[in-house]
Amino acid sequence: MTSFAESWTDLLPIGRAAESGGYRRFSWTPADAECRAWFADTARGLGLDVETDRNGNQWAWWGAPAPGTVVTGSHLDSVPDGGAFDGPLGVVSALAGVAVLRQRGVAPARPLAVVNFVEEEGARFGLPCLGSRLLTGATTPERARSLRDPDGVTWGEAMAAAGLDAARIGPDPERLALLGTFVELHVEQGRALVDTGAPVGVASAIWPHGRWRFEFAGEANHAGTTRLADRRDPMLTFAQTVLTAREQAAAAGALATFGRVAVDPNGTNAIASLVRAWLDTRAPDAASLATVVETVTALAAERGDRDGVRVTVTAESETPVVEFNADLRDEIAALVGASAPGGSRPTAGPDDDGRAPILPTGAGHDAGVLSAHVPTAMLFVRNPTGVSHAPGEYAAPDDCAAGVDALATVLEHLATR
Amino acid sequence: MTSFAESWTDLLPIGRAAESGGYRRFSWTPADAECRAWFADTARGLGLDVETDRNGNQWAWWGAPAPGTVVTGSHLDSVPDGGAFDGPLGVVSALAGVAVLRQRGVAPARPLAVVNFVEEEGARFGLPCLGSRLLTGATTPERARSLRDPDGVTWGEAMAAAGLDAARIGPDPERLALLGTFVELHVEQGRALVDTGAPVGVASAIWPHGRWRFEFAGEANHAGTTRLADRRDPMLTFAQTVLTAREQAAAAGALATFGRVAVDPNGTNAIASLVRAWLDTRAPDAASLATVVETVTALAAERGDRDGVRVTVTAESETPVVEFNADLRDEIAALVGASAPGGSRPTAGPDDDGRAPILPTGAGHDAGVLSAHVPTAMLFVRNPTGVSHAPGEYAAPDDCAAGVDALATVLEHLATR
Repeated sequence: MTSFAESWTDLLPIGRAAESGGYRRFSWTPADAECRAWFADTARGLGLDVETDRNGNQWAWWGAPAPGTVVTGSHLDSVPDGGAFDGPLGVVSALAGVAVLRQRGVAPARPLAVVNFVEEEGARFGLPCLGSRLLTGATTPERARSLRDPDGVTWGEAMAAAGLDAARIGPDPERLALLGTFVELHVEQGRALVDTGAPVGVASAIWPHGRWRFEFAGEANHAGTTRLADRRDPMLTFAQTVLTAREQAAAAGALATFGRVAVDPNGTNAIASLVRAWLDTRAPDAASLATVVETVTALAAERGDRDGVRVTVTAESETPVVEFNADLRDEIAALVGASAPGGSRPTAGPDDDGRAPILPTGAGHDAGVLSAHVPTAMLFVRNPTGVSHAPGEYAAPDDCAAGVDALATVLEHLATR
Repeated sequence: MTSFAESWTDLLPIGRAAESGGYRRFSWTPADAECRAWFADTARGLGLDVETDRNGNQWAWWGAPAPGTVVTGSHLDSVPDGGAFDGPLGVVSALAGVAVLRQRGVAPARPLAVVNFVEEEGARFGLPCLGSRLLTGATTPERARSLRDPDGVTWGEAMAAAGLDAARIGPDPERLALLGTFVELHVEQGRALVDTGAPVGVASAIWPHGRWRFEFAGEANHAGTTRLADRRDPMLTFAQTVLTAREQAAAAGALATFGRVAVDPNGTNAIASLVRAWLDTRAPDAASLATVVETVTALAAERGDRDGVRVTVTAESETPVVEFNADLRDEIAALVGASAPGGSRPTAGPDDDGRAPILPTGAGHDAGVLSAHVPTAMLFVRNPTGVSHAPGEYAAPDDCAAGVDALATVLEHLATR
């Protein structure tokens, strides 16, 4: 029987960068292989049957696969120098939840599975939720095979290096047809639960969001000898666009971020020839999202005209709003609220109506991809600082334990009905 | 006997990047080793004695080393994706010039040497003119040993990998005492000679210039969930500073460029924790230079306060104005003007006073470092587009030949007097 703390302990050192204290667990790297081995070993230790699907996602089965399976899990990959909780908390809690059900002597009436999705962050190949997108057909195998990491390695080459065959990737309708419900537990990526006083909440929706690649093409030249008037400096156009994106997001009640930049030739005394930068945008609704992206694109082109810089914008991913299944959401909010009366979790407290708090999020998740095909829900565990995708990401041990209890209660309910 | 064209042909393919058409000849890399082997082979083919000094600079001697030596040469390293001419034109022309003197049957009255300085561009270790700075004591061996390339490799480790011993680097006063005159030929990095109609000009001065590293330190967080008000996003402060630097340079008649950027963690859906960016600034005089750097620094800090971002600025290199030796400059301008009567060089034409044009430059050179110790001059060869530090950098074959002729005439004059 594996306790939550024991599961966690072996996973924590894997892929941790000494210099930053953050995690670098990128798909198909040695750190990822260690995470996957940890998943398989831990699941087998719980008596689960472990397999890898054609897209590289790992599944651990309690009971023979059959339609109506209750699935829970998350991902183990990280953003560059990410935190310990985003992804792993959902996988560890899923395995710990299975252990709780075993302890409780629960006899599931239907199969139960724990899943570890690959490349959820898109940190290596640029397309988030790639494992669940391939499974559901939301991304084609051709597109996935065309993706390259920053070193030019393709998805197929990376999979092959990890001992898997990318020739078989693609939609997996037989597997999808087995899924009766999907529940993903995740650390909260904001501070809404702090205000409610509850350690665990339930997701209402995921904001529409996407990633756009901006390419600012100018002309390389010598920084010490080229007159300002003779320059075609893409750094200027990029800089103005960073400021424009912030202004437009603020005006629309949205979020816009340039966090990733690549400069050619990136020499101290060379005017850049090309700046590539990625805009991450999220908004409460599709119209606001479109307005922000269109306005930033138009103003970037306008500034580019003045700078002699050509601006091209490519949508790398666009995800529409996800409204989670309302019946499942309400059912789970009531269950979690009823099962959290305080006790060992001093700050725990349901909403006034006895339900766990229900809140939206700006972050994409595999649950968002699956929700188009399977009744899907998400649980959020309180994050005292709201910090996410950074080494300071945190959830208190008591809150993590509350998350496992809540998830176990939900799984028991779903698997025994 | 090695002709100019023959010297050039073997060198051209070394370190050329197929994807950009530009050169990546960074110190102590395999491409650099090939360039150094080419230098040694070509010089030996001319009957010169080749040696490497304690700092890794290569010297090829015509006659036994003695005080009063006439030295010419340049460098073979490149900026990232740089052009074929910046550096190599000076080395190739020096060797071709020696061949011309041999053809002319010149018997030097004093030793003549051709030099290939290491790490002139500072492209790998960040400090330009490192070979000449070490030779003259302008940079300490301790500072050089502390330099690291982007992969963390130290100068000493890189030298050792190339088979040289970094324990011996440092000032070389005995060698410096041998130098009677230094003349560096270089492709022009602007279009001033195009306007004069002359293929070859002579340098008056090098603008004061330097490199400042700006570090913008904020806080990494999730791009999809962190409210704008809760962010400490250093990309915003950096962006404003790019625009500020351009405005301040324009106001001061100076040049300011951010061409190199490094972002942590550089993830698409992560707000950056740290942006490092390098400001290259040049100005006609020291006061203007100081004003630009101080104003940009102050305005960056001001914007940083608003963004919750800490800004620190470090001077990585600062080079005062260099006025080349006026007597030598005038002597050479008269010689070059008198020796360029047209003929095979249809556009050649001296200034109205019969001298070659005299012009300043914003670019640093080893000649600038040596000029503090040795009477030094520079020749510039016309660049029809003014493009520099980029694959499009160019000088026409006739102009290159005019440069070799001019350099040979100068060397003959200096070595036989």
